[in-house]
Amino acid sequence: MKDFNFYAPTEVVFGANSEEKVASLIKHYGGHKVLVHYGGQSAVKSGLLDKVCGLLSDGGVEAVKLGGVVPNPRLSKVKEGIEICRKEGIDFILAVGGGSVIDSAKAIAYGVPYEGDVWDFYVGKAQAEVCLPVACVLTIPAAGSEMSEASVITNEDGDVKLGYSNNISRPKFAIMNPCRTFTLPPYQTAAGVTDIMMHTMERYFNPDCDMTITDEIAEALMRTMKECVFAVLKNPEDYRNRAQIMWAGSLAHNDVTGDRGNGDWATHQIEHELSGLFDVTHGAGLAAVWPSWARYVYKENVSRFVRFAVNVMGVPNDFTDPEGTALKGIEAMERFYHAIGMPINIHELIGREVTDEEIKEMVRKCSRNYTITQGKFKALKPEDIEAIYRIAK
Amino acid sequence: MKDFNFYAPTEVVFGANSEEKVASLIKHYGGHKVLVHYGGQSAVKSGLLDKVCGLLSDGGVEAVKLGGVVPNPRLSKVKEGIEICRKEGIDFILAVGGGSVIDSAKAIAYGVPYEGDVWDFYVGKAQAEVCLPVACVLTIPAAGSEMSEASVITNEDGDVKLGYSNNISRPKFAIMNPCRTFTLPPYQTAAGVTDIMMHTMERYFNPDCDMTITDEIAEALMRTMKECVFAVLKNPEDYRNRAQIMWAGSLAHNDVTGDRGNGDWATHQIEHELSGLFDVTHGAGLAAVWPSWARYVYKENVSRFVRFAVNVMGVPNDFTDPEGTALKGIEAMERFYHAIGMPINIHELIGREVTDEEIKEMVRKCSRNYTITQGKFKALKPEDIEAIYRIAK
Repeated sequence: MKDFNFYAPTEVVFGANSEEKVASLIKHYGGHKVLVHYGGQSAVKSGLLDKVCGLLSDGGVEAVKLGGVVPNPRLSKVKEGIEICRKEGIDFILAVGGGSVIDSAKAIAYGVPYEGDVWDFYVGKAQAEVCLPVACVLTIPAAGSEMSEASVITNEDGDVKLGYSNNISRPKFAIMNPCRTFTLPPYQTAAGVTDIMMHTMERYFNPDCDMTITDEIAEALMRTMKECVFAVLKNPEDYRNRAQIMWAGSLAHNDVTGDRGNGDWATHQIEHELSGLFDVTHGAGLAAVWPSWARYVYKENVSRFVRFAVNVMGVPNDFTDPEGTALKGIEAMERFYHAIGMPINIHELIGREVTDEEIKEMVRKCSRNYTITQGKFKALKPEDIEAIYRIAK
Repeated sequence: MKDFNFYAPTEVVFGANSEEKVASLIKHYGGHKVLVHYGGQSAVKSGLLDKVCGLLSDGGVEAVKLGGVVPNPRLSKVKEGIEICRKEGIDFILAVGGGSVIDSAKAIAYGVPYEGDVWDFYVGKAQAEVCLPVACVLTIPAAGSEMSEASVITNEDGDVKLGYSNNISRPKFAIMNPCRTFTLPPYQTAAGVTDIMMHTMERYFNPDCDMTITDEIAEALMRTMKECVFAVLKNPEDYRNRAQIMWAGSLAHNDVTGDRGNGDWATHQIEHELSGLFDVTHGAGLAAVWPSWARYVYKENVSRFVRFAVNVMGVPNDFTDPEGTALKGIEAMERFYHAIGMPINIHELIGREVTDEEIKEMVRKCSRNYTITQGKFKALKPEDIEAIYRIAK
């Protein structure tokens, strides 16, 4: 059994109207002047941004706004944020939005006290020692960034999408009001649940597979997400199931369902190049990659895929044919993706076949110029990554 | 669905030899001079105490030792610790032991900066605003105190056992080395698992019962504990199952399996008076109480007890007889307790029947002189508490 660290210090404040506590929480965590960071669509339209800014003002917390974060958040916006924070003497960053906004907020938080280029952290040139405190008002359950140490940023200069993980950026608090997710469109809802499940699947398909309690918790989370997503697609204002999805988004990525460091993550890495190149929704990209990854690697540990098929996907266990059972689990996942409106290959994701040149470019980036492997369940060499893109195309 | 807060900031450092990191962790969390707090039996005999003190010395952390904590830790020892910390200028408390030692360490941590009597916090006369930082090297998986905000102390003056909960005392880090639990005797091992399962059961039997994901995670934990305990009773050096029990001890009490504030806790409160009066092992006391509590309250929500019977205890669901299924679940739990050497009533716990006078005294204390009810699944008045003691006697 692998050693592990578990560290999830974020205070989760969960419930209808939980945003009412935003000013007192910021003050509790030492903030005086806040950058309110957001995207620009739902947070504005829903009135949440105005509400949060009003609550801050009423609570005596000074705020400067910076919107315009896009999915696959851009380095240029991060740098804009860093400049504003320095100029305005900001000491706390509040993300109002989903994973992209929180990831952008973390990057700004790293950059403010750092003399060099914040991109240094993402390319591995430097380690952040300090950062501004970050917190969030979550509006999209998906990325799990609200409790995680991870931030993924896209550098437009070369379309490079890279992640940086550091415990110091874990949000101080995360305000989660399930009502704020009622207006999420079906596609974003389904992509979010896909992302949530995948954060647990990446951990579940690990090279050791020897913690029954963690496996059972992971299976519990994946099974319940399958139920909850259909309930909220049918009734978007189903508070209880919106709440379960929102909470699962954090649990799936705070290491309760497995140690992040021991997980596979190849599907995420392969997808990063897809969404970097085609700017697709991350969760949908994951659905487009996973079945091909699964078919390519399942023979590494058939019994793990059998367990997944039976305990998560509800496939009857055919003891005479473990490989058949394993494959039926992958097929069941494809049917699930289709049922919630997700793609199961790149063609369905981007509306055309990906070209040979595009595949080669993604393989090159995914393998960092053919220097590294991806994944732990099976360590994928560049040729393996290419094979998976071809199966998925 | 109830709103909730989730806050589990303790850094868990889990694995064989994890104690090697003790000095660097203390320095990371700002400690310079440490009170090493312990019981006196296993930590000394096993060499762990000497090892920890050596590691602290090698790491340049000054340490003062205070042993002698007993199960159901005493207020007099807490006061001794407070005096030492003040005299020695100690700024960090490291508990080396199980729940009793950690609870005692938290009480000392509250007391050092407080001008009044530390017992004020436990009787509700005052709220602690600050405390010294606490951390632990865990040796007994049971109480969950290594990640929790709770501390239970017994005041010898009147034999009053009371708990105080405050987020500021949550340990900064918890070092968990499953090898350190290999020498736990079978009775302590079984009582520990009983306590772990009960922390989840207290949450599972709540008045709302409406979070499928939390229920499934809770059931996963309880099911796996039932397996793991038999494995380690058979082979005390089974690392994997010792590790699962150790990690479950934290998960069961860090609110992943349910919000503490929404749980029932009547069994704990009823047991507190038992272990206060007879100084029995807390986990064994819980086993002696729970079946009687369950029989007394199950009609409040039969379907919850049916779910427990089927999903945790593996009882076949007789759809024609929900009450029968519920009762079979309670009986199955009694058989499980017996199988791991735990009592199922007070007679088995203390070796004799409890007297009428003793019951009356426990009812009086448990109901705080007949002023409060206990429990949320069913709010128990003094006469209900008395009835349960009588069923359990």
